[in-house]
Amino acid sequence: MRDLKRKFGDRFIDDPAFLSLYSREASFEEASAKPLGVVFPTSEEEVLWLVRWAYETETPIFSQGSATSLSGNTVVTRPGIVVSFERMNKIVEVNPTDSYAVVQPGLRLEELNVELSRYGVFFPVDPGSVRSATVGGAIANGAGGMRGAKYGTMRDWVLGLRAVTGRGDLLEMGCRTLKCRNGYDLVRLFVGSEGTLGLVTEAVLRIAPMPESAAAVLAYYDSLETLVEDVVRVRSARIWPLFAEFLGPAESKEVGLEERYTLFLGVDVNRGAERDMLGRLRGIVRGAVAEEAVGLDRSMELLEPRRKLFSAQVALMQRQLGSEGLLIIEDIVVPVSKLPEAVRRVVELANRMEIPLSLGGHVGDGNLHPTTWFRKGDLEGARRAKAFIEGIGKIAIGLGGSVSAEHGIGTLKRDLLKMELTPTAIEYMKALKSVFDPKGILNPGKIL
Amino acid sequence: MRDLKRKFGDRFIDDPAFLSLYSREASFEEASAKPLGVVFPTSEEEVLWLVRWAYETETPIFSQGSATSLSGNTVVTRPGIVVSFERMNKIVEVNPTDSYAVVQPGLRLEELNVELSRYGVFFPVDPGSVRSATVGGAIANGAGGMRGAKYGTMRDWVLGLRAVTGRGDLLEMGCRTLKCRNGYDLVRLFVGSEGTLGLVTEAVLRIAPMPESAAAVLAYYDSLETLVEDVVRVRSARIWPLFAEFLGPAESKEVGLEERYTLFLGVDVNRGAERDMLGRLRGIVRGAVAEEAVGLDRSMELLEPRRKLFSAQVALMQRQLGSEGLLIIEDIVVPVSKLPEAVRRVVELANRMEIPLSLGGHVGDGNLHPTTWFRKGDLEGARRAKAFIEGIGKIAIGLGGSVSAEHGIGTLKRDLLKMELTPTAIEYMKALKSVFDPKGILNPGKIL
Ligand SMILES: Cc1cc2nc3c(=O)[nH]c(=O)nc-3n(C[C@H](O)[C@H](O)[C@H](O)COP(=O)(O)OP(=O)(O)OC[C@H]3O[C@@H](n4cnc5c(N)ncnc54)[C@H](O)[C@@H]3O)c2cc1C
Ligand SMILES: Cc1cc2nc3c(=O)[nH]c(=O)nc-3n(C[C@H](O)[C@H](O)[C@H](O)COP(=O)(O)OP(=O)(O)OC[C@H]3O[C@@H](n4cnc5c(N)ncnc54)[C@H](O)[C@@H]3O)c2cc1C
Repeated sequence: MRDLKRKFGDRFIDDPAFLSLYSREASFEEASAKPLGVVFPTSEEEVLWLVRWAYETETPIFSQGSATSLSGNTVVTRPGIVVSFERMNKIVEVNPTDSYAVVQPGLRLEELNVELSRYGVFFPVDPGSVRSATVGGAIANGAGGMRGAKYGTMRDWVLGLRAVTGRGDLLEMGCRTLKCRNGYDLVRLFVGSEGTLGLVTEAVLRIAPMPESAAAVLAYYDSLETLVEDVVRVRSARIWPLFAEFLGPAESKEVGLEERYTLFLGVDVNRGAERDMLGRLRGIVRGAVAEEAVGLDRSMELLEPRRKLFSAQVALMQRQLGSEGLLIIEDIVVPVSKLPEAVRRVVELANRMEIPLSLGGHVGDGNLHPTTWFRKGDLEGARRAKAFIEGIGKIAIGLGGSVSAEHGIGTLKRDLLKMELTPTAIEYMKALKSVFDPKGILNPGKIL
Repeated sequence: MRDLKRKFGDRFIDDPAFLSLYSREASFEEASAKPLGVVFPTSEEEVLWLVRWAYETETPIFSQGSATSLSGNTVVTRPGIVVSFERMNKIVEVNPTDSYAVVQPGLRLEELNVELSRYGVFFPVDPGSVRSATVGGAIANGAGGMRGAKYGTMRDWVLGLRAVTGRGDLLEMGCRTLKCRNGYDLVRLFVGSEGTLGLVTEAVLRIAPMPESAAAVLAYYDSLETLVEDVVRVRSARIWPLFAEFLGPAESKEVGLEERYTLFLGVDVNRGAERDMLGRLRGIVRGAVAEEAVGLDRSMELLEPRRKLFSAQVALMQRQLGSEGLLIIEDIVVPVSKLPEAVRRVVELANRMEIPLSLGGHVGDGNLHPTTWFRKGDLEGARRAKAFIEGIGKIAIGLGGSVSAEHGIGTLKRDLLKMELTPTAIEYMKALKSVFDPKGILNPGKIL
């Protein structure tokens, strides 16, 4: 530790009170070890030095952006060093002409978009946590978000990376252009690798022109089947939505809407084509249209109640458990047409287990966020919650889906991942991990 | 070879006349060895058997779709077996509701789109060779194409894969949903791996709703700078083109247009918004607008002369060299704003070297295809052509671009790749290769 103090001065902290702040995340997964200290590097050179030191001393390293992860992606599992990227949060270059931005990993996605809006461009990946989530965390989590129906996830929006691997090597990957075919695609191996292959020190992000305009509707349904069918009908009409989100009845009520299934459906259109699009959506959507929006800003505003899902769930939980509750947000994905069946089975499971359940998600891409809670310290509740998560994961696998759409594996879903993947796939992933981190010092205990 | 005969019967061929058909590709890269035979598997089980046999006997394997590669990606470099996927060309499932199609690797992209058009959906990756190019070849080449400005490349459109690795393991990767975060992204490691990591036996492709409508213009320019600036201005006006392609003056003339730089610019729009978009494009585009199109089909038709670039270049070459010529199509990419500078330097280099040059490319994503030719058997011509390619690659690197945008590395650009990447990146790529193919039997001599 003396080395670290000398190198980082007051940017190395080992005060236990402070450390506990940096050993938890937004999920209920708890740290299974105490960190030895937190380091706040300010340059790539410092990150290199740190990883080389960790490699020599075989000290685990836990990278951290804003710790908004939901699957134990950031929690400390062994005595080691937490590396917070808070102080590496600069925008290095914005190049709207060439459609890219170069940024440091600690930059928050929202800060990036504030800057980009000055150029009429934007970064489309938009997780619910966009106000806190950092570029590095979003890359390492392969994050998605509210505009995923149109724009996909981080894997589609990272062009190039600089990262320090677990061997202490500086690796430059990808390029600054939309297309490049310079050997194996290391960039996308890093996207979604949850800090287990290397520490990202700089990213080249692809940026997009803002949609010209948009139109959106908010509609109520009594049946989730009909809601999902309507989203499919919209696509069959050659309309590719910008967003297609939904809330369950209780959640709708909680955010101030009617106690029915709510569909939030937005479509980007050419300027002047908004009214026509609204007319067409009205013709397709069989739910009760309660709100309509014209223009991009108004359409995004219409989505606001959906963004309140997390706080609504916290409120629902607090009504039952006071401030003693712990929330668990699940993240399965199934083919869109299987969404109603998935919801049916998840509800059935929750009823059978007599466990609280809250529902919402991204209907445009089949991503469901079943959420439950239990009282802090209630070991039986925790056990049942874990069993519930396992049950939900199995439902997803059974319907041809996946145990995680965007939150990742972390510590929470390692066993589920083993059920989804073949042993061969796991074996190859382990071999890849060894290439980048032979001593297993990077975020140990995650994914595999 | 007796084993192969017994297993594959008349689907194993070692007749030398026939073999020579399967040891060349569309590029001028020549086979440096004779294949021992060609095998036409019809099932995954046969592919597994074959690779296990090759692993045991340490026999090189060269996968082949339609051999339209342009960088030596498919040429035979050692005595080994060519595996042609011609007979594994079925469409297993089309699921427009869930936006995916499951197909075998030997299926041609155009055949896929014929089938998909029955459902009002399409597969957007559209290389110039779309009539011959196979799914497996396009995946392994990470192919792009005419609609790349909007839709990107293969890496954005492959959801899941089944493949047999160089160890003879069957690997299942990815999923059927747009999003999934099930461990490391093996799918994108295979995209662009040029048959060096495994043999793809089945692919889950993402499909897209057809654009509702489109509008397009064809415009002439005297200066490439102005042409490129106009494409940037279009994006600044929040218009995200469907295609933005260009031809040089000589090439324009050869395909029946005026002898000036030609811009082909198409934008997908809502039905009814075509005329308005045309008006806006006319306001932005400073070139002489010679043609306009309204509607998706008409807009794609307007692009037809651009698709004739390859045959135009063949004609230009034949006028100089008769049927004795060999064409070399280069494939650099630079940030869009650097395109005029790249063209200036490439032209200068060609003049200095007194070498024929033809130009065209994808201006929407900075991808240039400088093309040259020489007489078959003219060793000095071949040497100069290689030097020219090296010079072009260096120009791309110098302008912050990449030595290949979409054609890949193959045998042609291995040395250039070493100039572009750091030694560390190369070292990690080699380590990855060893994980999948420790004996180096898959497409040896390519990429690294
Ligand atoms: C209310 C709420 C809503 C959410 N909504 C969404 C959503 O819609 N979509 C979605 O995808 N996610 C969502 N999330 C999950 C999470 O917020 C996102 O994945 C986010 O991108 C994580 O960013 P972060 O900066 O907090 O990363 P952290 O949680 O700090 O870290 C995430 C992972 O990245 C690693 N890491 C961090 N920085 C680096 C670096 N520089 N180099 C290498 N590895 C690094 C960490 O080790 C960890 O494994 C939500 C979370 C909350 C609490
Ligand atoms: C006129 C012309 C225009 C072109 N235009 C474009 C363009 O616009 N954009 C573009 O990207 N490319 C273009 N190309 C290059 C090429 O056509 C594409 O990359 C195409 O996708 C290759 O498909 P193929 O079936 O011919 O593959 P092949 O050439 O047969 O093989 C390509 C690579 O894939 C490997 N491979 C083949 N099948 C498998 C399998 N099942 N499993 C594992 N590996 C396999 C091969 O070993 C090889 O490395 C063009 C070529 C020509 C001749």
